[in-house]
Parts: sequence; structure tokens; C-alpha cells
Amino acid sequence: MAKRKIGPNPYVYPIPIVLIGAMVDGRANYATVGECGLLGIRPPLVIASVATEHFTTPGIEAAGAFSINVPTTEMLALVDHFGSVSGRDVDKSALVESEPGTLPGVPLLIACPVNLECRVVEDLTVEGHRIFLARVVETHVDEAYVSEADGRFRIAPVQDLDPILYALDNQYYSVGKPIGTGYQEGAKLTAES
Amino acid sequence: MAKRKIGPNPYVYPIPIVLIGAMVDGRANYATVGECGLLGIRPPLVIASVATEHFTTPGIEAAGAFSINVPTTEMLALVDHFGSVSGRDVDKSALVESEPGTLPGVPLLIACPVNLECRVVEDLTVEGHRIFLARVVETHVDEAYVSEADGRFRIAPVQDLDPILYALDNQYYSVGKPIGTGYQEGAKLTAES
Repeated sequence: MAKRKIGPNPYVYPIPIVLIGAMVDGRANYATVGECGLLGIRPPLVIASVATEHFTTPGIEAAGAFSINVPTTEMLALVDHFGSVSGRDVDKSALVESEPGTLPGVPLLIACPVNLECRVVEDLTVEGHRIFLARVVETHVDEAYVSEADGRFRIAPVQDLDPILYALDNQYYSVGKPIGTGYQEGAKLTAES
Repeated sequence: MAKRKIGPNPYVYPIPIVLIGAMVDGRANYATVGECGLLGIRPPLVIASVATEHFTTPGIEAAGAFSINVPTTEMLALVDHFGSVSGRDVDKSALVESEPGTLPGVPLLIACPVNLECRVVEDLTVEGHRIFLARVVETHVDEAYVSEADGRFRIAPVQDLDPILYALDNQYYSVGKPIGTGYQEGAKLTAES
């Protein structure tokens, strides 16, 4: 099919929406961002990008650490609110329950079923964005969503965790149905050819 | 609800699956990765992480650029295959149709409805991962998925683009239904309180 050039557009879609947590002025603050993702599994590396002037940014810089809190679709109104207002104007810590993580200065948003504690390993500033590469040092999962067998933890299917997705069409989406298993679907291609 | 600590786990979920394109040994090569995401909208910044020893890596380094090709669920077998085998062993260019982008050394995978051409602006190596921060310089969208009104381009809803998601439960997922509009859902929270 013919393509149209529509100019530079960072259209990687859809992206998981998370809440980046840090302590600012002695209070837990959470910023709703889509600019967060996976960089590697072994070791567990993640990235988060926030605007230089963002209220959360000095909190991350001071602790050298932050939390990634993964919400559910039930939390959509709160998540959108936290992405629409600044911690400068609203005390977000009054709207949610927080607990301290194992890293100093890293709050965890308890209502989120998954919280990652992340230690910054590299940071850089690119065109107004503060970008933090971080290593996950601890993962907290609601007991309802984790089981243990043969000494290994197993997290519930993503449908049960019910995360929020977002795309640059400015719509939030839920996750759909499972459509296949990693490193197995390719066998269908080679079987067909 | 009580939480369990399950150790370091980069569980940001689900992540969009894309194909990173580069020219290697004179041929188009595509690596299936989940380690790719958005860093910022203005300017349009993205990130991709590939293993240092990955076949695609020297192609990105040589061109200082790469493509992000966003597949559809119909392409799942191919996408999984491209994530299971190396370009060292399989000539991936023989399995798909490519076209050159506007940047030298950047192939576009035509079957993907969206292709981003990205110029590397920063790169670093962290614990075996080659990490490329890049600025999107051009976006190609299938004509079926783009319309123009008042001089602005509008991309089809994400459900129509039908991308592939993946999570660390090793399952692929489709995108679900739209659940809300950005910067509007938060009003429900403040209306309730």
C-alpha cells in the first residue's frame, strides 16, 4: 500500500501509562507518564523521561532513584488527573496511599498492583527532557497477582493486571486478548513455507 | 492489599512490539524488540535498546540512524520469527518487501502500516545493551490509516492499526477497547470529590 509522509511524529503505539514516584518537598509525588519503558531484561533496565522543569524531576535527582507504579483501568480518572496537574499546585500525596520502598526517598503507590523500585545508573538531558536509565532493584506485586512454584514467582496474566495504554490519538485503551506465545508463533511461518 | 517482593524485574507491561530496521552487509535487516519507546513528543524523541552483539547493531552505528516499523497482529508469525532468529543465520530481507527511507542506510518494512525514520542523537552502552536515543525525522503511514483536515494529519484509531503487545508473561496481546480521552477523564475525579 502507498504511504504518506506526515512529518516527524514519535508514533510508537500504544504505550503503557505509569506513575513515576519520587519524594519532593518531603511529600510523595506521582507523575503520569507514557515516556517510560523497558531497555533490557537481564539485567533489568528501564528508562523514564520527564521534562526538565517537571515538579518530580528534582526528587528523582536528589534520591538517584524513583518508583514506577503501574495502575489499572479502574484508576483511570486518578491517572489522568495526575497527568493533568502539577505537584506544584496539588498535593497528590493526599489523594493516594503511599508506602516507603526499600530505597531511601522512593515512595510506592499502594493502589497500583505492581511497583518497581529503580536506581538511576545513567542520566542525560536531551532537548528539554531529563532522561533516567535505571536498574530495577526491587519489584512489589499485590499478593492476588503473584504465585510461587518451584521457587519461582509467576505474575498473573496481563489481562488480570488490567493496565492502561495510551496513544498519540489521545485515547486511553485497555489491553486486549492474548494472541500468541513468544518464541513459538514463528514456527507457524516456517511450517507454512 | 499486601504486596510481595519478588526481586528485581523490569515489569513495565505490556510493551509495544516493533521491528528495528538497519542495513547490514548491504541488506535490510529487522530485529523484533520490545525495548523501544517514546521519550518525548516535542521534539519527537524515541529510544531503542539492542544487545551489543546483536546483528543489527553495527548497521545502526554505521548509519547513525534506524527505522522503527510497527507491525500488525496479522504479522505475528513473521514478527515472532524475526525475534527468534538472527540476521547472521537468516536473510530477513528475502522474507519482506523493503523500501529505502529518506535517510541513507535506513530501510522501511513496507508491510508495517507505520514506519518511523530516526536519527541517533545520543548513544550509550549500559551493561551489554547498546542504547540509542533518536529524533524522529520522518513518519510514513499507509494511506488507508491517515487523513488530512485543516492542514493537519490524523492517524486512524489504534484499534484499526492493530499493533502487537508483549509482556514478560511471554504472551503477545492485541490492543483492547478505547476507555477514555486524555486530559478529560481526570475531570470525573474532581467532579466526584
